[in-house]
Amino acid sequence: MLALRYEQDELRVADVPPPRDVREALVRVVLSGICNTDVEIARGYAGFQGTLGHEFVGVVERAPDDARHLIGQRVVGEINAGCGQCALCATGDARHCPKRTVLGIHGRDGAHAEFLQLPAANLFPVPYEISNERAVFTEPLAAAIGITERINIAKETSVAVIGDGKLGLLCAQALALKSMQVLLVGKHAEKLRVAARRGIETAMIDEARRRVSEFEVVIEASGTESGFALALDMLRPRGTLVLKSTFQGATQIDAARIVVNEISVVGSRCGRFAPALELLKSNCVDVESLISEDFALLDGVRAMRRATEKGVIKVLLKP
Amino acid sequence: MLALRYEQDELRVADVPPPRDVREALVRVVLSGICNTDVEIARGYAGFQGTLGHEFVGVVERAPDDARHLIGQRVVGEINAGCGQCALCATGDARHCPKRTVLGIHGRDGAHAEFLQLPAANLFPVPYEISNERAVFTEPLAAAIGITERINIAKETSVAVIGDGKLGLLCAQALALKSMQVLLVGKHAEKLRVAARRGIETAMIDEARRRVSEFEVVIEASGTESGFALALDMLRPRGTLVLKSTFQGATQIDAARIVVNEISVVGSRCGRFAPALELLKSNCVDVESLISEDFALLDGVRAMRRATEKGVIKVLLKP
Repeated sequence: MLALRYEQDELRVADVPPPRDVREALVRVVLSGICNTDVEIARGYAGFQGTLGHEFVGVVERAPDDARHLIGQRVVGEINAGCGQCALCATGDARHCPKRTVLGIHGRDGAHAEFLQLPAANLFPVPYEISNERAVFTEPLAAAIGITERINIAKETSVAVIGDGKLGLLCAQALALKSMQVLLVGKHAEKLRVAARRGIETAMIDEARRRVSEFEVVIEASGTESGFALALDMLRPRGTLVLKSTFQGATQIDAARIVVNEISVVGSRCGRFAPALELLKSNCVDVESLISEDFALLDGVRAMRRATEKGVIKVLLKP
Repeated sequence: MLALRYEQDELRVADVPPPRDVREALVRVVLSGICNTDVEIARGYAGFQGTLGHEFVGVVERAPDDARHLIGQRVVGEINAGCGQCALCATGDARHCPKRTVLGIHGRDGAHAEFLQLPAANLFPVPYEISNERAVFTEPLAAAIGITERINIAKETSVAVIGDGKLGLLCAQALALKSMQVLLVGKHAEKLRVAARRGIETAMIDEARRRVSEFEVVIEASGTESGFALALDMLRPRGTLVLKSTFQGATQIDAARIVVNEISVVGSRCGRFAPALELLKSNCVDVESLISEDFALLDGVRAMRRATEKGVIKVLLKP
């Protein structure tokens, strides 16, 4: 089968054998989405070698006996596969299992391929109301909603989201369903417009710089040092900065300001799929406007390049 | 009067006029303590120019009419002086007033002098049971206890404190009154012994490195990048790293680990004086063992140098 792989410092579409572990479910990928994490991995982040991709919608082709009801179903899948034996896995949350593999990120081939495999327990049937083009956003939307697992956001909580990329646009929309005061900050008028159409206040970075010490919560979704510094400027004393982007290498921060202003910096990674599917089904979030272009999987290398170009939001791959 | 001042990149003991604002209380300093923040300021941190020092015990010589009862009292003093008009000051907490001055740190001459002035509301009479040598630790002990204002520490919370300097030793002792599982990590056997004598578990850094993902809470009180990195190693997923030290300049951090392991990094600065005085009165905390040496204020420059030498914990100044 075809797969978009990163190996020995090289990104290429290769012909590889399909996954074959019969203890897991085999999924034929229908559509996959390119995430910034994929781009970072192809720059060396996380030291991963193998098939990229962790955002997908597909159809179950084969499943172990106890999950045969999934066969033929359209599914999305949680990306962390736990050991199944540790205390964390016992609570049903493999996201921090120390022995976990992560689809297309750590120890497990990913979704930019004709087929992928995952434990059956990771798969969620997609309600018929949700199209493939919407369902492929389940994983990043879950990650956006995951912020509310880490911190409390009430109606009156003032929230700024920094970064108008795919993740920032999803965070702003997800949090605007919780808080009446969400501001999305970015560099691209046309990207900000996606949020503005949903009634979300937006600001270009230069305007945002004037809103010093105004926000109780700032979400850093730009993955840049300048975004981190701007977040510290915009936060009230004792405010909370949520770090949402993974990026490679060390980051320079002004630790003294975190101490002096008693800021909390809260890391947030993966979220739950069930609430994300609920939101997609209820049509409360605009994800279609985030799709910039789709490519055939065979054109995966070009698609990855396209995903980093200015003005582009989400690039999809079709096997 | 004599004062230890940092001005135009130079640290020196100078003869300056005593403070004269009659709207505030005038305190004759009996004993002051050198904090790492003083040392950092003398390296350029915070851009402060003036008399250093914010840890003191003294006697009130003069006070405004509505605080005349303080005259002749032995006092310690909260270091943040608010504007008295903003919403934060209205709640009785000037610690984050945006217009605050801070004794010996920001916009207000400090305690390494024969006299200082502070608003009368900042002063706390010292119970007779507390000697001057203990009372001078009220401010740093309050800062250590302040951690419990920022995060919840229960009996069963596993806590590691990194750094066996003055602040680390106070944090370990204060938190050991809350949690049954406190580990102090340091580089100096003789400093760790102060905590060990109070029944606190201690470890040298190399041993601590082996305790990966073990702690729910780690307090970074070393003010070093290596301390920050070790803290991330020792924390469980979703654990909390408390940043307690202010230091100059940018710090390199591995932001991706904060996101992937969903760590909370919580800044903590000043604490309340009342609970610190309670602890000092009840003799639950050993501060005497932290005193390495005292110097005459006239010898302040030498005392500051001494405070940075290996093996030294707290250096006191006597006007």
